[in-house]
Order: sequence, then structure tokens, then C-alpha cells
Amino acid sequence: MSSSQITDLHSRCDLLRSLHRPGAPLLLPNAWDVATARAVVAAGFPVVATGSAAVAPTLGYEDHDAPADEMLAAAARIANGVDVPVTVDAQAGYGMEPAELVAALRSAGAAGCNLEDSDHGALHDPDRQTEWLRAVRKAASDDDYPLVINARVDVFLGPMVAGADPEVQAGLVAEALERADAYLEAGADCVYPIGLWEPAALGRFMAEARGPVNLLRLPPLAPLADLAELGVARVSWGPLLFFDAMARFAEQLATLRE
Amino acid sequence: MSSSQITDLHSRCDLLRSLHRPGAPLLLPNAWDVATARAVVAAGFPVVATGSAAVAPTLGYEDHDAPADEMLAAAARIANGVDVPVTVDAQAGYGMEPAELVAALRSAGAAGCNLEDSDHGALHDPDRQTEWLRAVRKAASDDDYPLVINARVDVFLGPMVAGADPEVQAGLVAEALERADAYLEAGADCVYPIGLWEPAALGRFMAEARGPVNLLRLPPLAPLADLAELGVARVSWGPLLFFDAMARFAEQLATLRE
Repeated sequence: MSSSQITDLHSRCDLLRSLHRPGAPLLLPNAWDVATARAVVAAGFPVVATGSAAVAPTLGYEDHDAPADEMLAAAARIANGVDVPVTVDAQAGYGMEPAELVAALRSAGAAGCNLEDSDHGALHDPDRQTEWLRAVRKAASDDDYPLVINARVDVFLGPMVAGADPEVQAGLVAEALERADAYLEAGADCVYPIGLWEPAALGRFMAEARGPVNLLRLPPLAPLADLAELGVARVSWGPLLFFDAMARFAEQLATLRE
Repeated sequence: MSSSQITDLHSRCDLLRSLHRPGAPLLLPNAWDVATARAVVAAGFPVVATGSAAVAPTLGYEDHDAPADEMLAAAARIANGVDVPVTVDAQAGYGMEPAELVAALRSAGAAGCNLEDSDHGALHDPDRQTEWLRAVRKAASDDDYPLVINARVDVFLGPMVAGADPEVQAGLVAEALERADAYLEAGADCVYPIGLWEPAALGRFMAEARGPVNLLRLPPLAPLADLAELGVARVSWGPLLFFDAMARFAEQLATLRE
């Protein structure tokens, strides 16, 4: 990476961080290849986010089963293919040591990343995850790399997949807030309680969270204007647009025989 | 490649070749990554074709400007990702020598390939193209690799891009037939006069072609039943489904802000 590319990556990190404004959420319609990333930019969005649940199947894998090098190569193609900051869904860090992960993200040109506190459905111990995030932040700082870290809080993910029972969501808010606080204190820029949508649980989480919050744009979530009013800083679509595109493709295939 | 993989590639080539039946066209809704390739298989199509004008932009390039290794890696992901024969749009052969090209296609797991007789809009000399196709066939045969070669005849491509003037198409039929005959005699399994759709020109081409014919499913082309009656052996969608998917994605992006 040349020194001008490093300067450029710095400004992309700074720009991405500055766009996390509670009340004026950064909208991230996640892309999965360079063509969709360029479409996101052409539509006027200031940042491109990747989504591993979309990128992995385009490469032939189930989500979380794709090799790190293939996922990072896809991220690098996207980051090299657009002129805006790219935040990379780095899953649970691919089992890499913090310094290795930070070097890989930097080399891919990532201005930011998502890091999950679960793997294949199993939640990480919160203390271990906090220390790991602290080590990732330290590795980035040691390398003068202002990587924007979006720390996922996956406590709502199992219930979301299981059917999004509102009572279950409400009961998980305390645990989610505890994790969110710890991750922010450890150096995360934003926390991402993926799967949180139930109005009472969401209201309580937003009232008590101590930093920028990212939500997944699930269909039952309140309208964007309401999310802005709650102070949400970032909304992402995860794999939802990919699923939509694939459904459209399947429909077209079904009609081709005329 | 293990010996069982080689056996498997042989049978994929044989199966692909056997599906070129004049009057019962093989339908190829071209895919551009593993997810779309698997969707094609799931929809019941027996073969997956790639399309360079779709694959290239997903990797960040204009069509014909993507490096060979990236295009071949994308083709290999697709061929490894499905259990059906995959025919690879190999453009004009990436400037490779015949033996190198054949080895690259074999290593990518291609059961077949498209080879164009133009590059960036300039038609190749027909004799040179014929000898080149003959050398590709010989390299494949020397390697006991029954690669299915679909030889593009690009004489209608410029007029198609320029506006598909029927009179211009009609005037090009003689040249197209001359090229098609020569390519088939040199060892091509099928010829692909891309951009041919005008009814009189198409009728004359089909009446006089001496081997299986592939057409591009352009909107003004006659219905599939009529093409079958004319004896067409293969119909492909090129980048048209990719363009449709990207249009759908752009529409979705435009509505996300609510």
C-alpha cells in the first residue's frame, strides 16, 4: 500500500466514523460484489457495507463457512472498486489473532468492520469478547489505523431466528446493554444488536445505550423516521437485498421457458 | 485434478455436447457467480453458462477488461459449485496460446466454452480465427479433453449495438455463414451468431448453417417455439438476466429511504 493509499484509507475511516450520527442514521444497503457496491454509490449512498451472508453464497459457501482469504479478497475487490468508505462484515474475525485481523482488514482497504460476538449460533463469553475487541482496537491504534469497529451484540439473534418473541426480546435487553457498554468501553465505535426490533425492548435499549447504535432493517422494525427519533445512528440491510435479488432472479428463471 | 475429477469432467463435456439438439434448444440463462449458478440448477436447467459481460462487472471491470486469472477463478468457483456441466464464456481466449487456454479451461472445470471472433469490437480475420479454433480443438484433443467449443460469429454484433438495422443484418448473412462453416469444419461444436434476430436473416442463416446454432435471447427475437422450429440448438441470455437483477437492485435502493 502506497503512502497516498494510506492517507486515503485514513480519510475513509474518518469519514465513515463522522457519519455515525445518532438521530440521522447512516443507511447501509449491504452489497455483495463490485457491481452491487457501485450501484449503492450510484444511488447516492455515502458508504458501502458488505454482508457476509450475501458474499459467502456468491463464492459458493454457507455463511460463516467461507475461507477468510476468499472473503477478504471479495472485500478488497469491493473496496478497490468504489471511491467511498467500505465497511466489511468480518464475521467473528475468522479465528485470526487481533494483529493479523487488523493487517488483513487494512490490506483489504476496509474503513470499518463488523465483529460478531457469536459464532455459528454460540454466544462468546462477554469478558473474553470485550478483551478481544480491546486487543483489536489496540492493534489498529498501534498501526495508526483508525478502523471503525461496529461490535455486534448477538443476544437477540437466536430469538430472531426462532421467531422473534417480544417477551423474549424484552428479557434480553439487560444482557445486551451490558455487552454493548463493555464493547464501547473497549474501543468499539458503534454497537449492533442485530435482531432487535420489538418496540418496548428497542425503546429501552436506545434509552440506555452509551454510544452509537446500528440496527438491522428487519421488516417488523419501526419506520426510519421513528428510528431516527429514537437516536439510531446506523441502519443496515444485511442480506435482505441479496435475498430480494435472488428471489427476483428465481422468478425470472421460472418464466424463461415462455 | 484427480482421476475421478477428470472422468467427471469428461462426462460433463459429453452431457453438454449431447444437449445440443437442433429443434429442442438447450436453454442457458447465464449466471455470474455461484449463487446465481445454483439458482439456475435449482430451477431445473441442466447446464450453467457464464457470461463475461456479467461476471466482469461483479469483479470490478468492464467486459473484456478483466484479467484472465480473475475471470478463470470466477469460472472455477462456479464449476466447483454445481453438479452440472458449466460452459464458460472465455471471450476471445484472453490472448492465451491454444494449449495454455485449454489447460486453463480444464483446470477451471469447464465442460465447454464460448470463443469470440472479435475483440473490443474489431472482427478477427476469418482465416486466422479458423486456424486458431483448429489449434484449440487440437490442444484439447491432444489432452483427451472433449471440450465443447461454441464459436461466436460476431458479424452481427456491431450492427446490433448500432441499432439492429434489418437490412444490415440481411447483408451480413453470407459472411456469417462463411465464418460459421469454417469454424465448424475446424472443430467447433456449435456456432453463435450473437445479435442475429431479424426474421429473414435468421431464416436464411438457419437454413444454410451446417451445424448446431446458438442464439442470444434478444427481446425482438422470435418466441422459443419458433426458434425450435427453425432448428436452433441453443439459446442463451448473455448478460440480460444480470441487467435485470441490477435494475431490480437499483429500484430497491431508490425506495429504501422510505
